[in-house]
Amino acid sequence: MDLVVVGSVGLDDVETPFGKRERALGGSANFFSLAASFFTRVGFVGVIGTDYPAEGVELLKSRNVDVRGLEQVEGPTFRWAGKYGYDLNQRETLLTELGVFGDFSPTLPEDYATAKYLFLGNIHPALQLDVLDQAKGAEFIAMDTMNFWIEGTPDALKQVLGRVHALLINDSEARELTGESNIVKAALAIEQMGPHLIVIKRGEYGALIYQKGQFFFAPAFPLEDVVDPTGAGDCFAGGFMGYIARHDDTSWDALCQATIAGSTMASYSVEKFSVDRLVDLDPAAIAQRAERFRQLTDFSPLRPLD
Amino acid sequence: MDLVVVGSVGLDDVETPFGKRERALGGSANFFSLAASFFTRVGFVGVIGTDYPAEGVELLKSRNVDVRGLEQVEGPTFRWAGKYGYDLNQRETLLTELGVFGDFSPTLPEDYATAKYLFLGNIHPALQLDVLDQAKGAEFIAMDTMNFWIEGTPDALKQVLGRVHALLINDSEARELTGESNIVKAALAIEQMGPHLIVIKRGEYGALIYQKGQFFFAPAFPLEDVVDPTGAGDCFAGGFMGYIARHDDTSWDALCQATIAGSTMASYSVEKFSVDRLVDLDPAAIAQRAERFRQLTDFSPLRPLD
Repeated sequence: MDLVVVGSVGLDDVETPFGKRERALGGSANFFSLAASFFTRVGFVGVIGTDYPAEGVELLKSRNVDVRGLEQVEGPTFRWAGKYGYDLNQRETLLTELGVFGDFSPTLPEDYATAKYLFLGNIHPALQLDVLDQAKGAEFIAMDTMNFWIEGTPDALKQVLGRVHALLINDSEARELTGESNIVKAALAIEQMGPHLIVIKRGEYGALIYQKGQFFFAPAFPLEDVVDPTGAGDCFAGGFMGYIARHDDTSWDALCQATIAGSTMASYSVEKFSVDRLVDLDPAAIAQRAERFRQLTDFSPLRPLD
Repeated sequence: MDLVVVGSVGLDDVETPFGKRERALGGSANFFSLAASFFTRVGFVGVIGTDYPAEGVELLKSRNVDVRGLEQVEGPTFRWAGKYGYDLNQRETLLTELGVFGDFSPTLPEDYATAKYLFLGNIHPALQLDVLDQAKGAEFIAMDTMNFWIEGTPDALKQVLGRVHALLINDSEARELTGESNIVKAALAIEQMGPHLIVIKRGEYGALIYQKGQFFFAPAFPLEDVVDPTGAGDCFAGGFMGYIARHDDTSWDALCQATIAGSTMASYSVEKFSVDRLVDLDPAAIAQRAERFRQLTDFSPLRPLD
């Protein structure tokens, strides 16, 4: 096992201008592991209730995701309901019911604990710390977080930040975390909190990574039809970490490639509801879109001015 | 004369979180022509009042801008006052006084009318049409516009759109013009209105160009200190059109390079108030930043998945 993810598993009710889905497979660990599964074998740590459809677990297995870390316990699965507005950039959360996720205490199977690459999905910082204590073999740890923890549990969050190598975060949350409106200053401020790699997700504007004075930018893929943005950030993280783990390479060059891998998975994810687009993807399509990403920003050096 | 610009010339009061300037040189034609002057000789069409500082005109001359199309008439120069909030993305217009710009009737000197490249700055569409009628030699015409004309004079604007080759526009205005929230759909809708090249300016998120099914994306340069965003879009346009006119090349490859040239000029422009940063720039600095733009998005092809 090279890559482990700990995160939420849920059943989502999602409404966008393009349709509506109920009890669709969701949660950060689902999106992450399905996206990462195209690159490497993933160990999945999460919890589901007795109401979780068996097909959801079968889907993970069919993608060769290791589900020994996925517990099923008595009670309802985590539920989330949200509605996206016309421009898909704003979403309203209509419902959050923790269910069995409320008592989640992640336990890493022994060979998960020795995995070199670890992703801490967007869960309570106390749980993230708990996982960090178990993950004795982790050499490259990335995490996600959100405004809820930035506002609600800042001290625990700062402890986690002090122990990880990379933070993946939305731009608005990077601004909130640091109090810096300028995104360069925000990245520098996060660097002071611990992570040496900062990955800022900007939705329809793409993503950027920062490490030791260097920046790399990836645009979002220009899609005419975005059906459901739910999970795009988790798919980005899955592609990003999956690529790194597959090649066991955290050089700057590999991190830039991983950003494109992540952007590619995110761009596919939003084309259908829930995890549907990840299910019918194949490696050739991923390689093809990654190459189209190259063309999107590729240009010949400018001709001289004098 | 290869490149002509028609636009506003103003005296701006600008307040940002980083300071305040009064009666600073501003207006789309000023920013445009100073940025373009690093690439080619520009013919300047605009109007100033008797209160306009002589240094403003001298500055243009010192940059080899042709000011025979700049009229000075009795009355006050166009005035604009604005205030930027903490994140610099929102600005409030505090004052707009047209002054002599209210009776502006652009007249192109004879050799301007035969220029191959023409930029119609963000002015009343009726004036843009008037210029189009005079610019008999123009083979590549680009224009800018804004929400004020989209809402106020949509019919005249559509006439202009039907007669130009390129539209440079902010993303929010592209959405407003087309009623399309998705930026790909917005570009396709604008294409139907006339321009075959659509350049969408996204402020801190960079710029993208679209032509016949092809996209190119440029990030904004990651600056730690953005002092004054006023005129950034006009500097982008100046660098973009200046590059094209200098090389007399509208191939896709040249348009991508021109997008970087524009992004480079915009990125410098915002480092100081008004046109101050354009004054102390040199070609070596422009070449250097353009090369840094390359590094921002450059990556090796992804390693194979199977």
